[in-house]
Amino acid sequence: MSKKLSMKNISLADFGSFHVGGHHVVLQGLPAKTIHYSPNWIEHYEQDGTYMVGQMYVQYFIPTGDHPYKPLVFWPGGGLTGVNFETTPDGRQGWLDYFLRLGYPVYNTDPVERGRSGWAPYPEIYQAEPTFMTAERGFESFRFGQAAGYHADPDHQKTIDGTEFPAAAYEQFIKQIVPRWACNAGMAKAAYVKLLDMLGPSIVLAFSSGATQALELAQERPELFDALILIEPAGFGLNPCDADRMKDLPILVVYGDYLDKHPQWPDIRYRAQVHLDPILEGRGHAVIIDLPSMGIRGNSHFMMMDKNNQVIADVLARWLRHAKRP
Amino acid sequence: MSKKLSMKNISLADFGSFHVGGHHVVLQGLPAKTIHYSPNWIEHYEQDGTYMVGQMYVQYFIPTGDHPYKPLVFWPGGGLTGVNFETTPDGRQGWLDYFLRLGYPVYNTDPVERGRSGWAPYPEIYQAEPTFMTAERGFESFRFGQAAGYHADPDHQKTIDGTEFPAAAYEQFIKQIVPRWACNAGMAKAAYVKLLDMLGPSIVLAFSSGATQALELAQERPELFDALILIEPAGFGLNPCDADRMKDLPILVVYGDYLDKHPQWPDIRYRAQVHLDPILEGRGHAVIIDLPSMGIRGNSHFMMMDKNNQVIADVLARWLRHAKRP
Repeated sequence: MSKKLSMKNISLADFGSFHVGGHHVVLQGLPAKTIHYSPNWIEHYEQDGTYMVGQMYVQYFIPTGDHPYKPLVFWPGGGLTGVNFETTPDGRQGWLDYFLRLGYPVYNTDPVERGRSGWAPYPEIYQAEPTFMTAERGFESFRFGQAAGYHADPDHQKTIDGTEFPAAAYEQFIKQIVPRWACNAGMAKAAYVKLLDMLGPSIVLAFSSGATQALELAQERPELFDALILIEPAGFGLNPCDADRMKDLPILVVYGDYLDKHPQWPDIRYRAQVHLDPILEGRGHAVIIDLPSMGIRGNSHFMMMDKNNQVIADVLARWLRHAKRP
Repeated sequence: MSKKLSMKNISLADFGSFHVGGHHVVLQGLPAKTIHYSPNWIEHYEQDGTYMVGQMYVQYFIPTGDHPYKPLVFWPGGGLTGVNFETTPDGRQGWLDYFLRLGYPVYNTDPVERGRSGWAPYPEIYQAEPTFMTAERGFESFRFGQAAGYHADPDHQKTIDGTEFPAAAYEQFIKQIVPRWACNAGMAKAAYVKLLDMLGPSIVLAFSSGATQALELAQERPELFDALILIEPAGFGLNPCDADRMKDLPILVVYGDYLDKHPQWPDIRYRAQVHLDPILEGRGHAVIIDLPSMGIRGNSHFMMMDKNNQVIADVLARWLRHAKRP
């Protein structure tokens, strides 16, 4: 871990955490089990019973001062938790700190199934099995490195030339990745509905598959959102027949650099255009920014951690100052 | 969730998070997989590759002011995360807030395999399968309720008479529980060694099976600890031949009320006495406090959340003021 520290001299009017959402699932007919936890701890227990499923962990930070901002909700991507926003792998300032210092009340979340939200048994409750990210796969698909570029020794890694990702801290980065499941998007969205119902219309900043889900939710329940920032949404499930439901919602979509360096990204970027076309600026309040078109180069999928993450945050904050519902 | 908020008007000299520890495990010979995450997202990937295993998430809070205290490390129990210390199910002040306001720098952790630390594939890497806690089992074994006393409707729950646990918020409590595994204690302890090596001798406050592991680690590496507070250690793996290794380490062990209300607790309490006997006050610096013997009644296993959690915290803080290594 880096000795640099990420968030210094901050005053909070309030800080804490809670879980929202969740429902009971009762399992019956399973065998009893005996677990031998340690040489001196044996536990017999019934698996039958009531399980809590679909709850979401929220940690909140309310800055001091009287600011006009709506709540800002961080919605992480697949296999990821709120940690992505509170630090960078090399210990620089994260976006949580950045927006707190501007005066935004920030609600940082671990989506259902991940981090401090916990997860439920499968196949008894979750339909799918968990999937795990290898160091090799993340290094390529997140556009940090070249094909087959991962190496456990950072001196031998082959990064993409000009990358802003702090690749020397890649081992620290992969410690942040947690398992994920298919088929839980519905539960994830239901938990965010609970949170947004509680907070009132909020600014949602969503990342990757979290952005995919946030956009679907905005189409279903646009009144829950004050503004929507989507960092590299990775898939699109919008219904073209309901496009005008989101026409009054300010939406900013941001993509980084090197979309041609891994085969999955050109198709993702193309789908973003097609799905958002009905509400792009002029007809609605959506805008897609490709950072290289603004002269901001070198950004990976994880732009909240890239070395120029403060430059990107400035872009988001400037857009937010002008993002107004009609 | 409660509308009461847990931590108001706090100034931090520093806040942030990091992961410590972890090592690589390379898996080979596994089949490639196709995951259909959503109607518009299909991913083909190799399972073979490099996995990060055994890392631990640490979130730190450094209060402003110039205080003489050593770092205070919270070490949660089995199937639990640092959330236990930052809130209570009914939204009152947690121990994180309590000790921060006294001036302690607090390092709150999610043990290996849990919460924001992530977890690794089994049986390929972890040896055991995960275990889950039902609402029924937790209600009894944590000494909140009577045998078969759980009911989804709080009005129909049968709690233990006089309990200090906020039983009306039990559903909120079980949202905090996450899966756990047998056979990972060695990795968990290795990650705390990394943390304590980084921080220097620290005050460790450990709970339940976390307390079991912390005590084992204190016997192996007493120089890592400045003082050790064990909240209801649930098992004991001390080596009686090495008892004097801990004789200079101040150790406080606390047990709550109702140990006779669930069959597992009298045996646990008996083993605590036998294992700690060689270093109990007079010969070493260990002391066991049964709260009822101090007139503090009604405490469950989760005394950091009980309605009198501030009374218990006062007991710990008073002991800490006098806990000095010789």
